[in-house]
Amino acid sequence: MDFRTDLALERRDLYRKANNMKEEIPGIETNEEEKNGTKVTRVKITNEEGASAIGKPIGNYITIDIKNVKLATEDEIQNSAEILAEELRKLYDIHLNGKEDILVVGLGNMGVTPDALGPSVVKDIDITRHLLKYAPQYLEEGARPVSALAPGVLGTTGIETQEILKGIVDNVKPKLLIVIDSLASKSIERISSTVQIADTGIVPGAGVGNARKEISKDTLGIPVIALGIPTVVEAATIAADSIELFIEKLQQDAKSNEYLNELQNEDKYEMIKEVLVPNDFNFIVTPKEIDGLIENMSSIVARGINISL
Amino acid sequence: MDFRTDLALERRDLYRKANNMKEEIPGIETNEEEKNGTKVTRVKITNEEGASAIGKPIGNYITIDIKNVKLATEDEIQNSAEILAEELRKLYDIHLNGKEDILVVGLGNMGVTPDALGPSVVKDIDITRHLLKYAPQYLEEGARPVSALAPGVLGTTGIETQEILKGIVDNVKPKLLIVIDSLASKSIERISSTVQIADTGIVPGAGVGNARKEISKDTLGIPVIALGIPTVVEAATIAADSIELFIEKLQQDAKSNEYLNELQNEDKYEMIKEVLVPNDFNFIVTPKEIDGLIENMSSIVARGINISL
Amino acid sequence: MDFRTDLALERRDLYRKANNMKEEIPGIETNEEEKNGTKVTRVKITNEEGASAIGKPIGNYITIDIKNVKLATEDEIQNSAEILAEELRKLYDIHLNGKEDILVVGLGNMGVTPDALGPSVVKDIDITRHLLKYAPQYLEEGARPVSALAPGVLGTTGIETQEILKGIVDNVKPKLLIVIDSLASKSIERISSTVQIADTGIVPGAGVGNARKEISKDTLGIPVIALGIPTVVEAATIAADSIELFIEKLQQDAKSNEYLNELQNEDKYEMIKEVLVPNDFNFIVTPKEIDGLIENMSSIVARGINISL
Amino acid sequence: MDFRTDLALERRDLYRKANNMKEEIPGIETNEEEKNGTKVTRVKITNEEGASAIGKPIGNYITIDIKNVKLATEDEIQNSAEILAEELRKLYDIHLNGKEDILVVGLGNMGVTPDALGPSVVKDIDITRHLLKYAPQYLEEGARPVSALAPGVLGTTGIETQEILKGIVDNVKPKLLIVIDSLASKSIERISSTVQIADTGIVPGAGVGNARKEISKDTLGIPVIALGIPTVVEAATIAADSIELFIEKLQQDAKSNEYLNELQNEDKYEMIKEVLVPNDFNFIVTPKEIDGLIENMSSIVARGINISL
Repeated sequence: MDFRTDLALERRDLYRKANNMKEEIPGIETNEEEKNGTKVTRVKITNEEGASAIGKPIGNYITIDIKNVKLATEDEIQNSAEILAEELRKLYDIHLNGKEDILVVGLGNMGVTPDALGPSVVKDIDITRHLLKYAPQYLEEGARPVSALAPGVLGTTGIETQEILKGIVDNVKPKLLIVIDSLASKSIERISSTVQIADTGIVPGAGVGNARKEISKDTLGIPVIALGIPTVVEAATIAADSIELFIEKLQQDAKSNEYLNELQNEDKYEMIKEVLVPNDFNFIVTPKEIDGLIENMSSIVARGINISL
Repeated sequence: MDFRTDLALERRDLYRKANNMKEEIPGIETNEEEKNGTKVTRVKITNEEGASAIGKPIGNYITIDIKNVKLATEDEIQNSAEILAEELRKLYDIHLNGKEDILVVGLGNMGVTPDALGPSVVKDIDITRHLLKYAPQYLEEGARPVSALAPGVLGTTGIETQEILKGIVDNVKPKLLIVIDSLASKSIERISSTVQIADTGIVPGAGVGNARKEISKDTLGIPVIALGIPTVVEAATIAADSIELFIEKLQQDAKSNEYLNELQNEDKYEMIKEVLVPNDFNFIVTPKEIDGLIENMSSIVARGINISL
Repeated sequence: MDFRTDLALERRDLYRKANNMKEEIPGIETNEEEKNGTKVTRVKITNEEGASAIGKPIGNYITIDIKNVKLATEDEIQNSAEILAEELRKLYDIHLNGKEDILVVGLGNMGVTPDALGPSVVKDIDITRHLLKYAPQYLEEGARPVSALAPGVLGTTGIETQEILKGIVDNVKPKLLIVIDSLASKSIERISSTVQIADTGIVPGAGVGNARKEISKDTLGIPVIALGIPTVVEAATIAADSIELFIEKLQQDAKSNEYLNELQNEDKYEMIKEVLVPNDFNFIVTPKEIDGLIENMSSIVARGINISL
Repeated sequence: MDFRTDLALERRDLYRKANNMKEEIPGIETNEEEKNGTKVTRVKITNEEGASAIGKPIGNYITIDIKNVKLATEDEIQNSAEILAEELRKLYDIHLNGKEDILVVGLGNMGVTPDALGPSVVKDIDITRHLLKYAPQYLEEGARPVSALAPGVLGTTGIETQEILKGIVDNVKPKLLIVIDSLASKSIERISSTVQIADTGIVPGAGVGNARKEISKDTLGIPVIALGIPTVVEAATIAADSIELFIEKLQQDAKSNEYLNELQNEDKYEMIKEVLVPNDFNFIVTPKEIDGLIENMSSIVARGINISL
């Protein structure tokens, strides 16, 4: 199954819909919570059956849906940051012993707006590692060493991000990596409004069909918490969804129509992609307000990480 | 008819298609030329019949389609700039007497990538008006006074751009306005790859259903040449076009299907827009590479204007 | 007397020092206040004698010195903004009748860091004028119409800023102008750390020897409140001050030295400027941290204005 | 001796002046050449005596002085880039065997204008390493693998740049490093107008008294070519130089003055620094036009490197 989304939650919904399942997928547990108007959904993949169903490794996937990031007030940004921090701290408790060294990594390309979220967050992280070494008097007793990096992308460096991080992790020896990246989603409403926290690492570019080398405990040797924020929806995805809706409507009105039932089973995405994506452009859908959205979301994520640390 | 594009050329094509016309629309003349791989199409609206057919005022609309702006070399940028300059000079000859004073205005919001093209062009315009006054020794004999301005948008200033320009034109008294703006198009291929030159002025935001006050000879008292570059296609437009294509396919295969023929006549756009545009977001489609595209197109337009002056 | 500073307070100090005055300059009244660690100094020029002494028009000049803008916390930024708002409101009471229309103008060149403060403030002003017209439901009852503009500088527009504003003021008809500009100061400590509020308007560029046309009630017909923030000190000013200090030291040690007494009376600035300013560069002194300083100061000023409105 | 400049050429001049030397410093060879109006000066340190005299390691230091970068035309930028490329190629011949793998590293902080040159150059480097691996058809036969990185600075990452690079070099295994960094100079005229090429690596921050860990063959295991561009002069340096000039003038007029002879031997820098640098600010002198200067210089350096590769 080709999900075209990086969100475990959306994949789980798509899988259940495609298989007409009412119950939960075996090997997957979910629960949902509402905190101050913010929805927190936890998807836990507990075994290989669940993992292979939705194409994601065993582990925890927490989705935080923030309402109306675009017009968020100072208070709402702070509230969302605190919810994010709380979820992060639970994962530190699982993967770290006390105040061990953390490296925060912002993936993505600073020069491309919908891909700039990672580097933008990194700019606002409170760095302490160098102060502990050179000026400990400026820090509270027992502060955790935090460092941060925006290594660029393969297209601007010529080096796989995983190779860059592997070298740095081996030499600098942090005990946990927090990786921030832009994701693809199926839903326009989630653009720069949702954070997915996963303790299974990340395959950058997976959701837009341009998968790079995995950044995870398997490849780097230390646990990797990935914070993913949807910033793009492919145009072909939207068009395919539209036609899906359209056919459903046709079927409601003329259920016997065998021809349409057949169509239902074809992959409209590829057909539409051919039409929509001329000249090898990788078209995406972003809200016109993406610059402002990313600024607010970047505040929430940076603040959430800072609070959690 | 709701065209959802600012390009006279696309409107003319849509009108003819909708009315199954083989011949030209009465009151419209067109011709097409190929220069060094760049297509120049001229649409001339000669009377009210033509004007009301495609909802654009009487005047000249020149569309320049530049191939592969994304990967344009220095030479290709220069070539496109020269073609643009040539077309501009023809319009100066119609609307100006010799080296009269020109004001170049970049519309749009610098802080929103797909809307930043106008202000970005203005930064590269060679300004001479102040030198003529304070340091004429730096200019060649007989130089034309050129000034430039990026006045912002209603949402950032609180003032209609037309009101700002009216005040400045009355006080500074240029003889011609060149206005650069981002447009909406129906075609993804045209994003940041097409320039429309019109000597009829502009209604900013018209193509995305957010029309502002007209900037034209009627409202400002001097001729206005508008350079419009498509930078957005609405997601709903793409989805509607996809369904259009889809239905055509259905009809080819099952021509007798009366039900689908009916659907053909409905406006899918509104139906899809409801689905696609939740929460009052104004979603648009831009290529992921929009930042780079706008940089190259901005070079072409600024250079074209500079050469023409 | 050539003051090489735009701050009325510094000019008054220089004048008194140069004339060995212990008492206040005739036609000038001053008082000083400390609020939450922020120093507010009010210089009031009451007649022509005071005005001609320090080369500034009759009116109010309030200097707010903010400590350590560089490391300002959220609370300190808010505190400074409130002090600024309070001083502004006092001036509105003098120059406006109730909630009349205000236009905020950010002078300066967005593309030159130490000159970008004005445009940067304008981006954060809460605009209401268009909402009152098109969407009053989003505003509280009795909101004041506020608009904002960053018109650029002569070097990027080719038009004197005063000409641009004259046109807009005549056409849009606000009742008061708030103008934000970068200033020159004599003191490195004041760079992006001081705000001067004056109700006499402004002559942009005056402090760096590049005076542009005056923006004031005389030229625009409505009262102009100028918010000036020092962002540059000329290198030659610093060197001249250093030599001044140096000679004082020489004299203390060898008072009879007639030769040095003579030197004291010469203008070292021009001599040093020749040495320091080769090739017509306009060199200035800015702290390396200017980008961060301007960001924080820009927050304070924008917030102060927003609170005051 | 405290040179307060990173340029070997300025250090050699200061050393000779301080020691009243007419001949060359032992262990140092220099020669000068003029190419199309660009001055190329080569300082070669041949032994430890030369190295300890000017506090720089044994190796080659080539200084390229470009005239009027501020107003450079396209042709002049290209010309300067070619001269730079020529000098780089000579060093490749010494340190590399054929088309071996090169990593280009832009040091400095993107968010601080005078420190942004390194990251800005890196953005324009033509990267090939990933294409050789994933899409060799886009490259000419026998292309050299080039990668590039802007790792940030200690203050933004919390990690010494040397540690980051050590990890990457060990893991990615390039055969040569080209490092671009901003330098301190003694001369305002050299700001963003001079490039120093050294094949001895670099100690970032050395010229502004904030030395970081050395980036060189000794620490990384592969040869390091450093391209340094002066972007700052300390205010205290300028003031000290001014007083120096001032005293020289005093002495010419009154040679017998013993007191001034004494003063001549004192270090004015520290005295002035106390006066000029309050509150721990690290003040620097930059031309107001630094943004534009850095843009042009960044073009020259990126293009020079691209041509050389």
